[in-house]
Amino acid sequence: MRVELLTVGDELLLGDTINGNAAWLGRRLAEHGIEVTRSVVVGDDLDVIVEAVTAALGRADAVITTGGLGPTYDDLTRDALAKAAGAALVRDPALERRLRERVERAGRELQPMALRMADVPEGARILANSAGSAPGLRVELPGGIVYALPGVPFEMHTIMDEIVLPELAEIAGPPAAARRTLRTARMWESVVATRLAEVEAMDGVRLAYLPDPAEVKVRITVVGPGAAARLTGVEARVRELLGDAVYGAEDESLDRVVHRLLAERGATVAAAESLTGGLIGAELTAMPGSSATFAGGVVAYATEAKHRLLGVPADLLAARGAVHPDVAAAMATGVREALDATYGLAVTGVAGPDPQDGRPVGTIYIGVAGPGHSPIVVGPKLPVPGAGPESRAVIRRMTVVHALELLRRVLLGLDVGDANGEARPDREDRG
Amino acid sequence: MRVELLTVGDELLLGDTINGNAAWLGRRLAEHGIEVTRSVVVGDDLDVIVEAVTAALGRADAVITTGGLGPTYDDLTRDALAKAAGAALVRDPALERRLRERVERAGRELQPMALRMADVPEGARILANSAGSAPGLRVELPGGIVYALPGVPFEMHTIMDEIVLPELAEIAGPPAAARRTLRTARMWESVVATRLAEVEAMDGVRLAYLPDPAEVKVRITVVGPGAAARLTGVEARVRELLGDAVYGAEDESLDRVVHRLLAERGATVAAAESLTGGLIGAELTAMPGSSATFAGGVVAYATEAKHRLLGVPADLLAARGAVHPDVAAAMATGVREALDATYGLAVTGVAGPDPQDGRPVGTIYIGVAGPGHSPIVVGPKLPVPGAGPESRAVIRRMTVVHALELLRRVLLGLDVGDANGEARPDREDRG
Repeated sequence: MRVELLTVGDELLLGDTINGNAAWLGRRLAEHGIEVTRSVVVGDDLDVIVEAVTAALGRADAVITTGGLGPTYDDLTRDALAKAAGAALVRDPALERRLRERVERAGRELQPMALRMADVPEGARILANSAGSAPGLRVELPGGIVYALPGVPFEMHTIMDEIVLPELAEIAGPPAAARRTLRTARMWESVVATRLAEVEAMDGVRLAYLPDPAEVKVRITVVGPGAAARLTGVEARVRELLGDAVYGAEDESLDRVVHRLLAERGATVAAAESLTGGLIGAELTAMPGSSATFAGGVVAYATEAKHRLLGVPADLLAARGAVHPDVAAAMATGVREALDATYGLAVTGVAGPDPQDGRPVGTIYIGVAGPGHSPIVVGPKLPVPGAGPESRAVIRRMTVVHALELLRRVLLGLDVGDANGEARPDREDRG
Repeated sequence: MRVELLTVGDELLLGDTINGNAAWLGRRLAEHGIEVTRSVVVGDDLDVIVEAVTAALGRADAVITTGGLGPTYDDLTRDALAKAAGAALVRDPALERRLRERVERAGRELQPMALRMADVPEGARILANSAGSAPGLRVELPGGIVYALPGVPFEMHTIMDEIVLPELAEIAGPPAAARRTLRTARMWESVVATRLAEVEAMDGVRLAYLPDPAEVKVRITVVGPGAAARLTGVEARVRELLGDAVYGAEDESLDRVVHRLLAERGATVAAAESLTGGLIGAELTAMPGSSATFAGGVVAYATEAKHRLLGVPADLLAARGAVHPDVAAAMATGVREALDATYGLAVTGVAGPDPQDGRPVGTIYIGVAGPGHSPIVVGPKLPVPGAGPESRAVIRRMTVVHALELLRRVLLGLDVGDANGEARPDREDRG
């Protein structure tokens, strides 16, 4: 079963709107083992929509369109489907009645234009919209089936889940592919891929690498008979090859993992941030219930604040500068005490674009202070993605990931050395 | 000049990734009066990519592809372009040298696989990637030009802005439409749109409303002869109608405006955050040079930390709870003193999903402490977008915007009352 998506609307081509509908549909269909083979966006142009629908049905069994079903004159999907089917647009009395009722209930006056939403290509099936005004349409064309859904996400989701998905799932039958996404931190994409070469070579197994700053998601796809059963073995092998770089699966983000590990231990963490300016605290408070594991934080952005709020020795700052492993250690200890937390997590470094205290952009030191051990510090060498604010943002994001990952490894008692064999702070560094 | 976009990657069809690259390219090209006529997403399949590129060039003058230029075996755009051009892939010595240098500088080992990024279709032009490893490629095919860019957003942005846009803009000539985007905060989309009804009605003028949490961007498009000249007058009228809700234009984000206003006054700000967990500090340190205006911050997430680190009176917290205008005022004063800053900016509130201290989700209080006046506090009523983590994220984001906007208004001596006529904390509230 091959499905193509067609999203209609000038606002998408202009970039005013990001195509979240296509992403949602792709996820939903994949969950049911239905493959989206192409996704196309066209503007509000009758003939272009007709051509795009027809071309899509030349490749796929079904097309799902979103958008262009509203009341205004730039909503042309209805007209395009009628033209593609060589059918007339006829006003549906029941739909018209429903529209009038909805408007009256809202105490508004019906705009004549709104009645366009009651027009249906002859022979089309109406897909009831329990969440809004514009109904969906199901039209059979020579090449296959077209499901036309409104562009309003909530309405589209409703019609999809209530009507279209069950229908497609029945046609498609049991899924031919099984998928699993594993999440890794600190490991370069090329290192991950190299380690997985043998899995890459397995029959009926496809790997995709989804890189984020300092993270790589590995999506395993197993196709063919017994896919689901095979996936279990393949996933186990991937975990073996990647080792403890795998921190979670599917939607289990690093902050959730750290939150869970802390909660399991009845522990809390306090964050002392420099170059990240609060991003670590923001991450650790993103999910509900985070107050149970996040005690609070100090953003010691200015060097002096590191001394003032975290008790980092002034002479250390004077002698070594703010970007130094001993400063990271002192910040971690300081914030742990200041907030009476089980763990203190601290980062100091240079986000750029300019060097600081003689340290190049991308230099970072991360410290963890915890019960029963002296502070642990790592200084991964970050790849500098370039100059400018975006590069700065990426370095800050990489720092957050490295910090959360260090805390995870400390909580689990794992080796804190870097997965890519990067240098840790050496003796010289420590002065 | 007609341009089509081709985004390559299974992760997009599966909905693991939302197609932000296509949206960014659409916006950027529109700014230069270049029309994107179609946007297509295909998976990591050699023949499909070849077919899609060829078909696109049958309709448009140029195609911009993103993705599929990385080091792994599912990166197939290079191979597809070579196949489409009937050319061989040859390894470029200069690119290979650069790759080796980048890896050595990072103290890493080069994965043989990474050298794929040095392969170029014979006759193609290399588009230098100053932000990363994978270069872009420019290939001339019978139907037109293909610009192949990496999928990593900031690398794609860099090559686009440095090389591709200037080249396309020159081919396209002067734009037939003039565009300007104004940015507003705190005002609801419907309020903005109602105020601009008269502009909406002007000939040759189109308005688009781009809503973000607590922000609305208004994109003005003027078409027809003398568009650029007319735009000036239209923009002036829009600014008149929206008044001081307009804080900036184009890419001038609220944090940049606040940074500039502080810098102009030689002033600094310190942030005391509760529900935002560090987002305000992160925002105020996003841009280079922010250390000149951001002194630091305290994330007093747990109620006790508000007393401990910010000196909020324990009896106030006990009597009124953590979510109260007087607490916001005390936090602002406390953080201003703790970090010896010109201004203290504080937020306390309920991000949800559960109420806190008897306050419903969406209740927030924002305080600003500054020289020569007692703390100013506002308590805008935030619209609660629903339950669940998405709603929590939106409330946190709205809080950041309201906080930065309050500081902007204080710095400019503007009325701090809410633009939508919302209630400010009343006497009862203040106990």
